[in-house]
Amino acid sequence: MALHAQNRQKLLDRMRAQLEAAGRDSTNGVILLQGGEEQTRYCSDHVPLFRQESYFMYLFGVKEPGFFGALELYTGKSFLFCPRLNPEYAVWLGKIQPPSYFKELYEVDSGHYVDEIHEVLKDSQRGGDWTLYLLHGQNTDSGNFSKPASFEGMEMFNTDLELLHPVLSECRVHKSKLELDVLRYVNNVSSEAHVQVMRIAKVGMKEYQLESTFLHHVYMYGGCRYCSYTCICAAGENSSTLHYGHAAAPNDKVMLDGDMALLDMGAEYHCYSSDITCSFPVNGKFTEEQRIVYEAVLDAQKAVIGAMRPGVSWVDMHKLAEQQILQALKHAGILRGDVEAMMEIRLGAVFMPHGVGHFLGLDTHDTGGYPKGTSRILEPGLKSLRTIRILEEGMVITVEPGCYFIEPLLEEALQDPAKSEFLVKQVLAKFRRLGGVRLEDNVVLTADGCENLTKCPREIQEVEAVLAGGAWPLSKKGA
Amino acid sequence: MALHAQNRQKLLDRMRAQLEAAGRDSTNGVILLQGGEEQTRYCSDHVPLFRQESYFMYLFGVKEPGFFGALELYTGKSFLFCPRLNPEYAVWLGKIQPPSYFKELYEVDSGHYVDEIHEVLKDSQRGGDWTLYLLHGQNTDSGNFSKPASFEGMEMFNTDLELLHPVLSECRVHKSKLELDVLRYVNNVSSEAHVQVMRIAKVGMKEYQLESTFLHHVYMYGGCRYCSYTCICAAGENSSTLHYGHAAAPNDKVMLDGDMALLDMGAEYHCYSSDITCSFPVNGKFTEEQRIVYEAVLDAQKAVIGAMRPGVSWVDMHKLAEQQILQALKHAGILRGDVEAMMEIRLGAVFMPHGVGHFLGLDTHDTGGYPKGTSRILEPGLKSLRTIRILEEGMVITVEPGCYFIEPLLEEALQDPAKSEFLVKQVLAKFRRLGGVRLEDNVVLTADGCENLTKCPREIQEVEAVLAGGAWPLSKKGA
Ligand SMILES: [Mn+2]
Ligand SMILES: [Mn+2]
Repeated sequence: MALHAQNRQKLLDRMRAQLEAAGRDSTNGVILLQGGEEQTRYCSDHVPLFRQESYFMYLFGVKEPGFFGALELYTGKSFLFCPRLNPEYAVWLGKIQPPSYFKELYEVDSGHYVDEIHEVLKDSQRGGDWTLYLLHGQNTDSGNFSKPASFEGMEMFNTDLELLHPVLSECRVHKSKLELDVLRYVNNVSSEAHVQVMRIAKVGMKEYQLESTFLHHVYMYGGCRYCSYTCICAAGENSSTLHYGHAAAPNDKVMLDGDMALLDMGAEYHCYSSDITCSFPVNGKFTEEQRIVYEAVLDAQKAVIGAMRPGVSWVDMHKLAEQQILQALKHAGILRGDVEAMMEIRLGAVFMPHGVGHFLGLDTHDTGGYPKGTSRILEPGLKSLRTIRILEEGMVITVEPGCYFIEPLLEEALQDPAKSEFLVKQVLAKFRRLGGVRLEDNVVLTADGCENLTKCPREIQEVEAVLAGGAWPLSKKGA
Repeated sequence: MALHAQNRQKLLDRMRAQLEAAGRDSTNGVILLQGGEEQTRYCSDHVPLFRQESYFMYLFGVKEPGFFGALELYTGKSFLFCPRLNPEYAVWLGKIQPPSYFKELYEVDSGHYVDEIHEVLKDSQRGGDWTLYLLHGQNTDSGNFSKPASFEGMEMFNTDLELLHPVLSECRVHKSKLELDVLRYVNNVSSEAHVQVMRIAKVGMKEYQLESTFLHHVYMYGGCRYCSYTCICAAGENSSTLHYGHAAAPNDKVMLDGDMALLDMGAEYHCYSSDITCSFPVNGKFTEEQRIVYEAVLDAQKAVIGAMRPGVSWVDMHKLAEQQILQALKHAGILRGDVEAMMEIRLGAVFMPHGVGHFLGLDTHDTGGYPKGTSRILEPGLKSLRTIRILEEGMVITVEPGCYFIEPLLEEALQDPAKSEFLVKQVLAKFRRLGGVRLEDNVVLTADGCENLTKCPREIQEVEAVLAGGAWPLSKKGA
């Protein structure tokens, strides 16, 4: 809970500074957030497992639905408001706890019922332009807006919907030491589970059996009940579908001899995410073509991680990955001509149409990628970047170069004279059923470089050794 | 897909009959349903795994989000409308399929895009009081209303929101042979997974490790990606919390020597549910008290299953279970006095506050429990029944008697002179930390009796043998 207390203090400091900078009274108001609510599935009484809203989680660490939380700018006091449940629910849900219980559990200064918000806030009012700061703003990945807190009697208060969202989103960008500990833990657990999956993967299995093995490992041995996102377990040509694994493409193919597997799977712990991708030949041995593509991606990943430090532009890292991959494809004879000229016409986006990485934290695609005043670069590949920021200490970001042979994109490129002049069609043909390779690590920026939180086999000889059942250092430590 | 074609035919027949009985034109209209939509989590771009809406699934078997489906009363023709996705999504989601693909895949008569609904329905219009029948009605378990289909241009059509819901809900009550095959399959898989869990359960493990083992088994070996509901893995006193396992009580206790485990877990396959509960001592051996309570519940379950056949009232089955349990508790010295008198004052609801079972199908608490003209019996215990119907062939219902020592209910009963006169306080005291026992099987009504779909160890010697690692017949067959 110290983690969340620190997060609250950081927000308070920044809100006060922001208000002062704007010449406003920095102490006259309260920050109020509403936590997530339990949902039912369609009209039924099926209740999907509740998962806390990420902004609320960041500040209060509350796992239960139906809460509100507040921070008083004047005193810095923290408040939690729990729902007043019918005592009869005790039979179904367990002991119904009072506000004092949650006050202790979540280490806040004051506990109340949700129906007391109005009363408590009234007591906090100090005249002047006392303001209730509510969370309202757009998520730059989904385009959705966060839902500002809403309670009975709210119309009596002066509210501000502008200030809080950018400040809180920015707080989440730089991770504290305690947050890094959690991120390190969940990355260890997920890395280990990937290794376990590599050990059991065999030709003839269904893709979803790898998903099942991963989910089991992270929960059974790591206590991770949730994953950060739906597992992508793609074999063969499916590996060129970037978000394979969703309900309409549910990891249900039989893995064949000669298939590459691309597994993008990450567990979540205390709502903090991991996001790791491994790629390997299901039968245990890379073919020549697989090796070429794999090494292109691995070299790109190494180049990016090697170059990452505070002050570096993420756009440059994306371009660095592209350049490495184009260079390797040229070396393999798939491309011909000048790599700089390829970069110029954005040929890299044909082979890597996604961004090279994104912030990671309480959300898999974490907040703060495009702060006010920045906007997407509207060029192929670069437009998919979830952030274009200059790297800073404490940022956690994925490094996930990929190289895919995606039919519609290749067709389009072959039709486009500007692109097709670089493509060597007959060599390319040998790769077109390979699918794709992605390697994704989770990296934290340090004062003078970066630390890779992910501990998966990456070198070809490491991957083949683990696929053959060999030991992997991490597996000896345990999670 | 034959399963869903049969379901559609059943609905068409009943709708026509219903319209005829009401003196209306039985052929002049179209039934239109809207499938589920993909959601995002709060404001983020996190997409929880999509699960189809159950009414839509019943008729069309479609696993993808964003569809509509229609049935023409005149011709019986079936239509599917798929969303028109941006071709650029192919990179992320895989090949974007046209309506003709879904027409073939789901074996309907006609495939179109969602934006063509208006056009297609216009062509179907035949003058007179041509009507669009939409799904609108209340779920008797959640109190929520199903969302009627809605599309652009709908205001031009004559619509009926009344007729379809009760007819379709009633269609789902009696399962077809093909539906029973799926239910039998998912019950086999889940039964096996329960056995596997019993084999690995040990003192010192966390409750969630049993959940993880169950989830893994049903997915890895049964292909079940979803469960019917959040797993309840309750050990010790937690087993008296009926819906333990939710986010606020997340199966995270260490299982101690002497604890009973109550595991309510069921996989889902092709959206069809299973719902099975096993109870056993974590250390492998029943204590005397555990044996008494377990046998009380087992005898109640056997009595109910032995009595179930078409024509029997489900309320009577609930009372039969109560009576068996009260009788056993009297025999054990926990209760004294006349069992009929106990029944009279609803003492059974102190020990079994939930209903003895519910319909099971595409929803865990399936539709049709309270058709028009019926209502809940407002007495303790009975008010929790999710149906009070007379049993009929083809119904699938859970049989889940339980006996719990729930502190607030016991306290209340001890305070109530009418109840406390039956309670032998000093004997009861020995049971108050036991938690509870529930045994839940899934049973289908046949022409002259019933068939139990669940194949778990139930007798005490069977349970102890499997806990000790012994073989269980089902495990040899495989799923
Ligand atoms: Mn990622
Ligand atoms: Mn049940």
